Order: sequence, then structure tokens, then C-alpha cells
Amino acid sequence: MTFPQTLAADACLIQARLDAALADKADQPVIHAMRYAVQGGKRLRGFLVLESARMLGVPSETAIAAAAAVESLHAYSLIHDDLPAMDNDDLRRGLPTLHIKWDEATAILAGDALQTLAFELLADPALGSAETRIALVASLAKASGAEGMVLGQALDIAAETAATPLTLPQITALQAGKTGALIRWSAEAGAIIAHADPSPLRAYATALGLAFQIADDILDVTGDATKAGKRLQKDADAGKATFVSLLGLDAARARAAELVEQAESHLQPYGAAATNLIAAARFAISRET
Amino acid sequence: MTFPQTLAADACLIQARLDAALADKADQPVIHAMRYAVQGGKRLRGFLVLESARMLGVPSETAIAAAAAVESLHAYSLIHDDLPAMDNDDLRRGLPTLHIKWDEATAILAGDALQTLAFELLADPALGSAETRIALVASLAKASGAEGMVLGQALDIAAETAATPLTLPQITALQAGKTGALIRWSAEAGAIIAHADPSPLRAYATALGLAFQIADDILDVTGDATKAGKRLQKDADAGKATFVSLLGLDAARARAAELVEQAESHLQPYGAAATNLIAAARFAISRET
Repeated sequence: MTFPQTLAADACLIQARLDAALADKADQPVIHAMRYAVQGGKRLRGFLVLESARMLGVPSETAIAAAAAVESLHAYSLIHDDLPAMDNDDLRRGLPTLHIKWDEATAILAGDALQTLAFELLADPALGSAETRIALVASLAKASGAEGMVLGQALDIAAETAATPLTLPQITALQAGKTGALIRWSAEAGAIIAHADPSPLRAYATALGLAFQIADDILDVTGDATKAGKRLQKDADAGKATFVSLLGLDAARARAAELVEQAESHLQPYGAAATNLIAAARFAISRET
Repeated sequence: MTFPQTLAADACLIQARLDAALADKADQPVIHAMRYAVQGGKRLRGFLVLESARMLGVPSETAIAAAAAVESLHAYSLIHDDLPAMDNDDLRRGLPTLHIKWDEATAILAGDALQTLAFELLADPALGSAETRIALVASLAKASGAEGMVLGQALDIAAETAATPLTLPQITALQAGKTGALIRWSAEAGAIIAHADPSPLRAYATALGLAFQIADDILDVTGDATKAGKRLQKDADAGKATFVSLLGLDAARARAAELVEQAESHLQPYGAAATNLIAAARFAISRET
């Protein structure tokens, strides 16, 4: 299968696992909102879990709960990020955000419960031994909490009211938390499940995560809001520093391409088994949404 | 030690474990807000973890991370519950709520990260084998998510706009989720850590949780807001059904006392080792805050 076919097939697998996790729940708005929030998206994080596991010889059936977990956690972060007190977005993946379609209270609670669901999914015995599962819990908590994703989000909010725009090292640190930590965890999760050395995948995903964010900043300036399914040019409108505002468009593109080459180099030892992960890195900077 | 002395000593232990978990973090408002949010409170849930473990022969040093975890999770739920879109409270434990002292975005993120911290704490190797720790993760996720605490909160919000007040079975179901699930988990956690049968502790905590909530409804009517450190008579002002509005004050008191007797009866087999848990059940309905 080509990379786009694999990405699409993995998205279906992940959706099915999330649907199963949300089946037979109460007929309440908060449950409907959770189901709505886990629809769509590229599922890049879940793909990274499944593909890094596959590269190391672990089948999708074994790794799927971890892929669903990171997508559930990502969905929670988007819901809370879209809230009026945060980014105040009314469009996500081409659809009204949760607090628009339901209300703020339902959006807060649905996000909360999707975070919980992520950890519940990591307890799935299909993922392997208790040692493997608790290692996944500990590392996802580290990546997504006050030293990872949430810290990145907090730095992002602080940047909005800062007297001076952030510098390049500051933006890099912010993004290493806000988007980098989950992308890194996703690739590492495959190694944890496979009982393999996580270092090459961590190095790959660190470069990939930064390239992905630079590409996001480029898309924010050059992208098509209809294709993206969300509001664009927000950062420029808000006067926020981005990789594009700091480096310029051409240098930002060059830096992203360089990072993708770095990402690829870390996977050389795996040969042909790394084909899809290398394609994913190239996709991260060539995508239109 | 008497029960009040044990409760106070356990609160100190729990605070120290939470302080350790939040040490050496970034100098950011979201971290300061997390530290602020885990101060104070009765620590009844953490006490239940430590005391149920002790009753079964497990020392505090072994169980402490689980006690800190449930208090971290409880703190997150209070922060989000106090938000303007939820209960819109400006006072908690006698202090300004997080969104008053900082802002809504910081309160949302601090709550999110305290939920994450709860699961990070449950990965602490001091709690025992990987099997024990993943069992704690799975059960806490179940108790606090869309089938437990969050569902109870969602039902509570739905009740506020419902055309007719809730019935007694509906209020009981709501509270079994909103406050009952975490109280039940806390007592069960001791049995999980001790590899003991959780059934008697589950039955004890189910009765205790309901008694605790009936006492809360009684305090909401008869209590002193200064002592309670929060706004009272909210439910009556909002025209919401409570155990008091449905049963009357005297019958609510009688029902709570009956539940405490039930709770005690489940711990008879443990003899003197259950003294503190029995005192906790009595305290649940005699407390002034």
C-alpha cells in the first residue's frame, strides 16, 4: 500500500476503535459531543503509533488502542483549545466546534472525558503486558501534561499578551510542547509496545514534529481556509510571532525540508520497513491542510 | 490516633506528595494555579485510599501516590465545575476560584494538567507491580470519565434546564456518578493495592458516598457559608431538586444516618482495623463544612 492508502486505512481502524470505546454509553449530550469530536482529521498521531509499531514487527491489532488513545487525547486538546476563553474558534475540521454545536459546559466536559478515555484505552490488555501498558500511561501523561502539551498551550496563551513577540528559541520550545510532545509520544509508543529502543523513533519524531509545525505556520499564511476546514491567518492577525514571521517564507520552507531530511536519516537503519514513516515526514511539509 | 488526627496527618502526607509532584516545574501561571488548586480541603478521598490500604495491612508509603492521584483528579473536577460556563463559582475552600485569581484559560489548562497528573501519579512504582498500577489506572478512568464522574456532572447540568425537577431515583443516579464514583474508587484503591477482595470496601463506599451527598444537601440549607468557604443555598436558589427538597430535612437526616449504619455493617468483618473508616462514615454526616 502507498502512504496515502495506509494513512486512510489506519484512520478507519482508529475510528472503529474509538467508536467501540464510545458505544453503549448514556444517551446524553456529552456522549454525543465526544463522538462528534473524534470524527475526521488526518489521524497523523494515530498513524505514527501504528506505523512505528509495524516497522518493528507489531501488528495493528496489538497497537490500535494506543493509536485511539492519542487521537482521543488530541481531540480533547482541540476542544479545549477552541473554547472562547482560549483560541475562540468556531470551525474545526470543516464543522462547528463543540461549544458552538452544543454549549461551553458540554465542550469542557466532553474534552475532560476524552482525556480520561485516552488513559482508559491504554489499559487495554491487547497492548501487551501490564509493564508495557503502565509505561505507555506514564509516558503519555508526561507528554501531555504540565511538562508537555499543556505547558506548550500555556506558553502560547502567554505569548498572546506578551509585550514583545517570541524569539526563535522560544517559539521552538513552545511548539516542542504544544504539538511536538504528542507527535514524539506517538512514534515512541510503537517502540514501547515492541520492546525496542525508542531513541531512533524519538529523534525522527522530534524533527518531524518541528517540521509539521513550521508547515502549519506556512499553511496559516498560504493555505486555503475551505480545504483546511478552519480559520487561517489567525497568527498574523493577532500579531503573533511564528516560524514564518521570524524566518520569512522561503527560509521557513528550507528549514522544514532540512528537518524532514534529518527525520529520514534517523530511520536509515530500518531500511524498507521505514518507507511509510519517511513518506509521512515528507507529507508533513507538502500537505495542503 | 483518633480519626480527626489521622485525617489531618493524612492530609499532610497527601500535600507533601502533591508538592513533590509539582516541584521543579516551569515558572508559569498554569503551574502556580495547579499548586494553588491542590491546597486545602478535607482530603476525604485521599484519606479513604490510605485508610482502606492500612486496614488491609498496606503502609501509607505504598499507597500515598494513589491518594495524591485522587485528590489531583478531584481538584481538576472542582476547577472545571467552578468555571463560568459550569457552576460559575467565585469562592472555593474560602479562596477565590482559579478563573477569578488567574483567568479562564489558565483555569481550563490547570484542570486539564491536574487530570493528567492523576494518571502520572498512578504510574509511581511505589504503588506496587505493573499489574496493580494498570488496574488503578483502568478503574480510576472508569470512575472519573463518561460513565462516572463526568456523566454525573453532565446530568447535573441537564437538570438545571430540565422542565421538571429530578425524581429521587434520578438524583441518586446523578450523585452516584458526580460524587459517588470517586469516593467508591478511593476505598477500592486500597483493596487493589493490597490485592484484597474489593467488594466490602465498595459496598461501604457506595453507602458512604450517598450519605456524604445527602449531608452536602443538608449543609447547603443549614450550613454556615463562612465555615464552608463556599457559596451555600445555591440549589434552593436555582430551584434544583435535592435530597432535602425531595425528602424534607428530617427524612434526609434519617436516610443519611441509615446509610452510615449500612456502611459500618460492611466493615464488621475487619473488626478494630476498620475503626477509622467507620469514624469517617460518621463524620460524613456530622461535619459542619
